[in-house]
Parts: sequence; structure tokens; C-alpha cells
Amino acid sequence: MDWIRAIGREFVVTSPDQLREAATATFSTSQAVPAILRPGNREEVQACVRIANRHRVALYPISSGKNWGYGSSVPAQDHCALLDLSRINRIVDFNEDLAYVTVEPGVTQRQLFQFLRARRSRLWMDATGASPDCSIIGNTMERGFGHTPYGDHFACTCGFEVVLPTGECIETGFGNLPDAKAAPVYRWGVGPFLDGLFTQSNFGIVTRMTIWLMPAPEYTQAFFFMCASEQDLELVIDALRPLRLNGTLRSSVHIGNDYKVLNGLGQYPWERTNGTVPLDRDRMQAISAEMKFGRWNGSGGIYGTKAQVKEARRLVKQALRGKVVRLQFLDDRLLKIAARFARPYHWLTGLDLSRTLEIVKPVFGLIKGIPTEKPMASCYWRKRGPVPAKPDPDRDGCGLLWCAPVAPADGKTVHAMTSLCENILLSYRFEPMISLTLTTDRAVTCVVSISYDREVPGEDQRAMACYRELLEQMTESGFYSYRLGIQAQQTFDPESAYGRLLASLKDALDPNHVVSPGRYLAPAGSLHKIAAAR
Amino acid sequence: MDWIRAIGREFVVTSPDQLREAATATFSTSQAVPAILRPGNREEVQACVRIANRHRVALYPISSGKNWGYGSSVPAQDHCALLDLSRINRIVDFNEDLAYVTVEPGVTQRQLFQFLRARRSRLWMDATGASPDCSIIGNTMERGFGHTPYGDHFACTCGFEVVLPTGECIETGFGNLPDAKAAPVYRWGVGPFLDGLFTQSNFGIVTRMTIWLMPAPEYTQAFFFMCASEQDLELVIDALRPLRLNGTLRSSVHIGNDYKVLNGLGQYPWERTNGTVPLDRDRMQAISAEMKFGRWNGSGGIYGTKAQVKEARRLVKQALRGKVVRLQFLDDRLLKIAARFARPYHWLTGLDLSRTLEIVKPVFGLIKGIPTEKPMASCYWRKRGPVPAKPDPDRDGCGLLWCAPVAPADGKTVHAMTSLCENILLSYRFEPMISLTLTTDRAVTCVVSISYDREVPGEDQRAMACYRELLEQMTESGFYSYRLGIQAQQTFDPESAYGRLLASLKDALDPNHVVSPGRYLAPAGSLHKIAAAR
Repeated sequence: MDWIRAIGREFVVTSPDQLREAATATFSTSQAVPAILRPGNREEVQACVRIANRHRVALYPISSGKNWGYGSSVPAQDHCALLDLSRINRIVDFNEDLAYVTVEPGVTQRQLFQFLRARRSRLWMDATGASPDCSIIGNTMERGFGHTPYGDHFACTCGFEVVLPTGECIETGFGNLPDAKAAPVYRWGVGPFLDGLFTQSNFGIVTRMTIWLMPAPEYTQAFFFMCASEQDLELVIDALRPLRLNGTLRSSVHIGNDYKVLNGLGQYPWERTNGTVPLDRDRMQAISAEMKFGRWNGSGGIYGTKAQVKEARRLVKQALRGKVVRLQFLDDRLLKIAARFARPYHWLTGLDLSRTLEIVKPVFGLIKGIPTEKPMASCYWRKRGPVPAKPDPDRDGCGLLWCAPVAPADGKTVHAMTSLCENILLSYRFEPMISLTLTTDRAVTCVVSISYDREVPGEDQRAMACYRELLEQMTESGFYSYRLGIQAQQTFDPESAYGRLLASLKDALDPNHVVSPGRYLAPAGSLHKIAAAR
Repeated sequence: MDWIRAIGREFVVTSPDQLREAATATFSTSQAVPAILRPGNREEVQACVRIANRHRVALYPISSGKNWGYGSSVPAQDHCALLDLSRINRIVDFNEDLAYVTVEPGVTQRQLFQFLRARRSRLWMDATGASPDCSIIGNTMERGFGHTPYGDHFACTCGFEVVLPTGECIETGFGNLPDAKAAPVYRWGVGPFLDGLFTQSNFGIVTRMTIWLMPAPEYTQAFFFMCASEQDLELVIDALRPLRLNGTLRSSVHIGNDYKVLNGLGQYPWERTNGTVPLDRDRMQAISAEMKFGRWNGSGGIYGTKAQVKEARRLVKQALRGKVVRLQFLDDRLLKIAARFARPYHWLTGLDLSRTLEIVKPVFGLIKGIPTEKPMASCYWRKRGPVPAKPDPDRDGCGLLWCAPVAPADGKTVHAMTSLCENILLSYRFEPMISLTLTTDRAVTCVVSISYDREVPGEDQRAMACYRELLEQMTESGFYSYRLGIQAQQTFDPESAYGRLLASLKDALDPNHVVSPGRYLAPAGSLHKIAAAR
């Protein structure tokens, strides 16, 4: 009742269909959603939070709710009303010279991209491989990453506006001080730097954020390469790390295994396997030999003036020599030519060129910060029917669990991690689709997809069992995930000093525990216990 | 008594001389220091903190205590025992390939530099212009900056070990999880990112930190330039910003006004001025014309392969053309030649070459992360006697107050800020020594020195009055300092939501307020009130 008064009847959703939809992820969940609140501005968010405190009802804020593979829009605990921020979607500030934009949580990748294009801006955004309809703030709150030099999303933000769990509102950084000229450009402000508190937590609701944008370089090239053998991955990681460290490669390099590439090309090869799963190593090898892709397949971007790109290209070539096959460089011009004269140009991979372009174009786009619809189709990997025109993995029963362990950018260590992942997934009869991203100069983020069909009986359970084993084995080996799904956020031992610290912060900021209970701070330290029990 | 039992009699200092020394800064303070505790390891820090809680005695942790211009080792409030961490000075981990080192608070710039040199490491540290004996953690806690691509110190750290005000100890980032392989290389960890909480605050005592190091580039050049006129500063800032934004300039550019350069060259020109102060604009201009330096004087570094440096140099030349005079590039080879054949080489500034080299060499060193003793002498600017062999500004009554407002990297805005600063200082009869540093791609940090002789009666008061007016006028104009001295840390309005948030964090983390009361979180929001009262 109070909510209806605060934000209007039409924005308090209680229809069973919509609630069921909101409570559906890409894996099995049991949390029910009693209501969806759709406030239209920050003041309404504050009103909702105050009401929640009064009635001791928990809220679970989402931006676009497209946290696929990690829980979609489903709350981490039962009985939370969804606080859907997607209507709060203004672009409230923009500065071409200082290269930033200030957005609200409902602003999607598509919206920002179109905004910049409409203004003929020379600035690039950074895009994730997820849908153009994903929220920028939502991804940043999860510390997601993209493919340009601004790929470490949280690192490229400045000045959060946060509705605290008490309903009060603050601005972080210099923004807390009146008329601070450097508020959108200098993130630390003065006094303690608080922004990190509000990422991957349940300490507040971010309702506005400045993100930095990258001036488009004079010239951009993408490079693509393959590793013929499993072991070459180690050499490649060790060869790329120095180029990241010395600034020659300013953005992440992205390396996918054979399964990942096949997943990008289409659905599961049901015919070839006579309807059986999984696609085992032998069959995978036969396919990749046929389709001419490698055991590992990499891509990256180089940016700068023509001369800067030329030198970077020389250094990439030199570093990868003898470690990869088919190192190819690509730019806008070549891409246009290739599209026009598909037949004579088998320069890229020897594959059917139009098919190659289908993969290459969105990758090149991401390297330039252009959001793409393409990877959405990959969620339909194990589905028997075709990918619909408007994909919706939650609705369509696409099974997807993501696990994202991080390793130091050291070849041997990364390889040990990927081997472990591949073996576990195959042992559960899933294809081990793995991507490795050199997200920072020193670290590699591995994203393992457990992709399945939720409509096949028993698969939900098998996938979750696989996920659990994967997480356990990663934990035992010291490879922790940079991000966790709602089913696995029991990271901290409540009896450790760290667990107590987080609990006391939570109590201080959210005395009634109304914001996202259980989110990233669930009190049962399962991971920690696994590791401690060794 | 408890303290003596916990850490040993010889490490609990109560001799009046030493206490007086510890309570002496480069400006007037009234806080007395009742005792100095010098724990030898982290466990002893914990013991000291527990005792402090038991007896409700406040502690003020310092690393090396060389926070000159901002308060040296003097606590922000009266009656705090100093917790001197300088004995805790091990380098506990080092990795050449992943390019990091893990240090304790007593590790100085000199110590790390020598450590790397002794190992013939290919890695560079980043150094501040302060003394080689300054603590690395101390500077990072203040979010200080240096001159290489790793100049934003806090941005280049990973994994804090923190003794909380309760005496418990945590590690941040992945370090809170057992045996996490990415702990020293991936700073966000999983769950909320807490590191920022412990910088510029009184929420904990950092007893260990990993800092990232930069692989030495194949080749380094420094560039130097001058602005003939005041207005050219605007053009230069606007010309350099795009080069920072596009990655051509990976480190800060440092620009000093004429007063700052003269301050770097020696002491106040007493003879020339017949013993009067200040050095007014006309006399300053006459000197700089004579000595051939500019109204503004800049330096920066470019790093990479020979070809990368060559291209960066072309871009710097192109960007600065017509906006500066005497744009000169310098490398190790030229520097050696110049030192050997000082006479025929007047290539650099037309100045007496040996004197030029004296300024240029430490600047070039800082660009390569080599700590320098040189700038210490500048604290003796207004002293009548010569600079001692072992400078100690606190001991020698050097007056120094630093104010460090931040502006967006926009020429007009930066110029408005510097004009205001210069006028205020001259009106108080101090020389306005100003440096501008393009610390990040979008922001310029201005460091204004109020440099005086504490032994001249009345100067302490006049300098503080000048500082207060400077801070007030900067605040009114929206230029807030990135860092504050102990005399000015009343930043937050206690009645604002932000002030209440900080207070509740403090209460949660430090229920007895035993760590650094008043530090950056003092409850009287003077700055805020000035601005609000407008």
C-alpha cells in the first residue's frame, strides 16, 4: 500500500506471470519474488527504501536484471521485493573534452552507444559481450569487463550517487562537497575512498555514476591468432604479459578454447553426434581440424596513430612468433573489402569467409566498444530448436552457469586452471567452453560456461552439481572467482576477522538488513570452509 | 606498563626531547605526544591496539612520519600516542615476472630502490619528489603521486594487510581467502572492494601492501618545455590532455611556475632583494629573464621501444608547437655527454649547463622512478643560513604548508585556479610556488607551497592565516584538495548524510575511537560550511 502511494499503482507489479518471470534465471532457483517495484527516479528509490525499513521487507535492486549465468534478476534470498531500476535511465551529464558521461542505472549499452552516435561524439564506450540491453551500472557493480583499454569497468568510474539502506543519499568522491569542479574526473576525492564498498555488496543502491570514455584513436587494428596445441597456450600467455605490462597492449586479449569458438558459431552439432552428449575431445578435434580453428583462439586490439599501431603490430608479431599459427591483422578497410569480395579473400582463417566474418565482425566491434547481439545466441547451444529472433535465455529455458576464476598471468598457472576446468566439465558431460581474458596487466580472468538445456529433465541438477564441483576444485587450487552467482555467494567465513568486519559494516550501513540480504555477504562461509578443511 | 610488556621497554619512548621532536611539524601545532610506541612486527601492532582499547588511549600510526607540509609526524588531535611503524620494514615478497613487491610500512623509497638494484631487477619503482627516506606505504595511504606511468600510487596497489582498530587483522582483496593465487595481482578480489576505506582515514592500520612495479622500458626520454607567457599555460594543458587520454603520455606531466623553479635552484635571493620579502612579480620576472626560464616550465617522460618513443616525441612536438618555447628532449646518452662536455653544450636552456644539469638530473631520475634528495633543499627557501648536509625541515624550523587543490584538466579552469593561488600568497607576502601535475588523464593536481622561516616571529601565524584563506577561497571556487594537512581535516559536515555515513563507519570499525581520532574525519565540517554559507 505504502509503495503504491509512493511510486504509483502501475509501478508496483504483482501479477503472477510477471513475478514468475522475474524469479526465473538460467539455472534452478527457488526464491520467490513477492512484488516488483519500479521507481521512476532517485527520490522514489529513497521512498521505497524507507518503506522497506518501516515494514522490515527486504529489497533486491536490479538495473536491467540481465545478470545471465549469475542469477539474472533473481534475488540472492527468498522473499525479497525486486527493486527494478530500469525506468531510471537518464544520461544526466556528458563532456566531450574531458571524456565522460554520467548515467543512471537503467541506461543500457545500446542507449549510450546511440547517444554518442547521435552526438557524433569522438568518444568510445566500452562494451561487454553481453546484450546491448544490459545496464552499464549493473555490469559495473559486478565489476564486469569489456574489450577496449577501458575494459576494467569499475576502474573507469568516478563519483557514485548512492541511496543508502537507511534511505539517505550520498555522493562519493569530491561529489560529496558542494560544486566540486573535479568531481567527475578525479575518483579518489578526499578522505576515505568509498566507491569500492558499493560494488559486489549489499551496502547501498547506486543510482548514478560517471563513467570515463575513451577518445577514438586515429587508427585501430584487431589481431587474431590460434594455438595449434594445448601447451602453446602457456607460451602465448607468457608472451602477451610483457606487452600488457609495457603498455603496447592497452586492452585485454581474449582467448577462447575450441569449444568456445564452436559455441560462437552455432548450436550443438546434434546430427554429427547422433544426438548424444557431450562433444568429447576427439570429436571436438575433428571439427576444429575441419573448420580450421585452433585449440586456443585469440583476439586483441591495438590502438593509436598509424605509426603507433605499426610498431605495436611489430611487437605483437615478434612476441607471438613460433607460438601461434595464423596471426592475422584486420582493420576497418580490410573488413569492408572482405565483406564485398568474400570469395577471393581467404586470407583470414581459410574458413568460409562469410562465416568467418560473422564471428570476426562482432569481435572487432567489441574491440572498438560497439555492443553486439551476437553472443546471445550462444546461450541456445544445447537447445534443439533454433535461436529465436528475440533471444531471452531466462524465458527459453537456456541453461547457463558461469564460473569466473582468476589466475595470475603466468602461462603454467593459467594452463593448470583451464585443464582442471575442462576435465570437470567433461566428466559431467558438458562441453567445457572457456574464455581467458587478460583483463589487467597481471591477471587472467577465466570464464567457464556450463551451457545446457533446462527443459531436459535432470539437467538442472547435473549442471548445479558440476558447478559446485568446479567451484570447490577451483577454491582448493587457489583460483577464486572474480564474481559469483546468487547460488554461490557464501564466500566469507563468518567467524573470521574478515567475515566479522563485513558483518559489522553491514550492520552499520543497513541496520534492518533491507537491501539484498545474502548478496555476496551470506553468512555461511562454504568456500572458506572447503579451503580451510584441506 | 602494558605497552612495555608487549613490545619491550626500549621501544616505548617517553624522553621529553624525543617527544618534543615527534610533536614538531613544519608549521605551528599544539598537540603534545605523550609516548611513542615502536612495535617490531604486526603482532606487536595488534597488541598495542588491544592495550589502547583496554585503556581508552588513542594511537596515531605513522610510517616514517615524513608527511612534511601536511603535519610531519604530529597527530591530528592532542593526547595521541604515536605508533611508529618504521621498524616494521621488511620486503616480504617479490616477483620479477608478475612485477610486484610486497612491503611493510617501514620500507622507504631508498630501501626499495636499493633492493631492486641489488637484485639487478628490470623493474622500476615509482618515486615521489620527497625524500628517499619516506615510507612507501605512508605516501600511498595519503594517495600521493609520482612521475612514472605508475604515478597514481593507490591505483598501483593490491592486497592490504590491515590491523583493525579492534586489534583484529584482515587481508583485503583475494588475500582474505586461503592461498589465493591472484591475491597480489588482482586488486578487486570478490565481494566489496575495501582498500579505499583505509586510505586517508582512521579506519585501520595498514601493515603490509603489495605494490606493482613497472618493467623498465627499452628506452626513455624526458622532455622539457617553457611557456613564455602566463596565458600559454591554458594552451599547454589543453594540448597535453589529449595525449594523456590517448595513451601517448603514460605518465604525469609536471609544470612549475617561475617561483617553483627558482625555489628548486636555491634559497631566497636575499641579496638581490636587500633582505625584503616577498619576491614580487617584477623582480621574479627579471630573474627568470636573466636565468632563462619560463613563466611556466614543464617536464614529462615518454617510454617504450625506440620507435614508440620516436612517435610519441613527434606527437608531443606537434601538440606543443607554437604554445611553448625551448621544447627539448633528453635521454641517458645526452645526459652523459652533457655532463662530460658541459661547455660546448648549451643545447638545453642556454643556462649555465652544470646548473641546468643539477635541476634536470633529478627530474629525469624521477621520470625513471629514482628517488632523489634534491627537493629537500627547497624547504630551506627562506632560511638565512645554508642548507645543512642532512636536511630535516622539522628540526630546522623550516616553515612549509602544502595545499593541493585538484582541477579538471581544462586549461582555463586550471589557469583560474593558479591565478587565485598566486594572488593570495603574494598578498600574504609569500612567494607563490606552484606545481601542476597531470596526475591522471583528466585531472590536474596543483601543489601550492607556503614556504617560510619558522624562526621569524609572527611568520607561523601569517602562514597559517594565508593557508586558511587559500583553502577557503579554493573551496569557494570548487577546487578541493586531494589531501589535507592535520590542521585542516575537518572536511565533512557531520550533519550531512555523508558525514553521518563516515561517522557510522568509524563507530562500527573503531567503537572506542582509538585510532587517529580527527584524522580526515574530524566532526566539524568547516570546509563544507564555508561552501554551504555562500
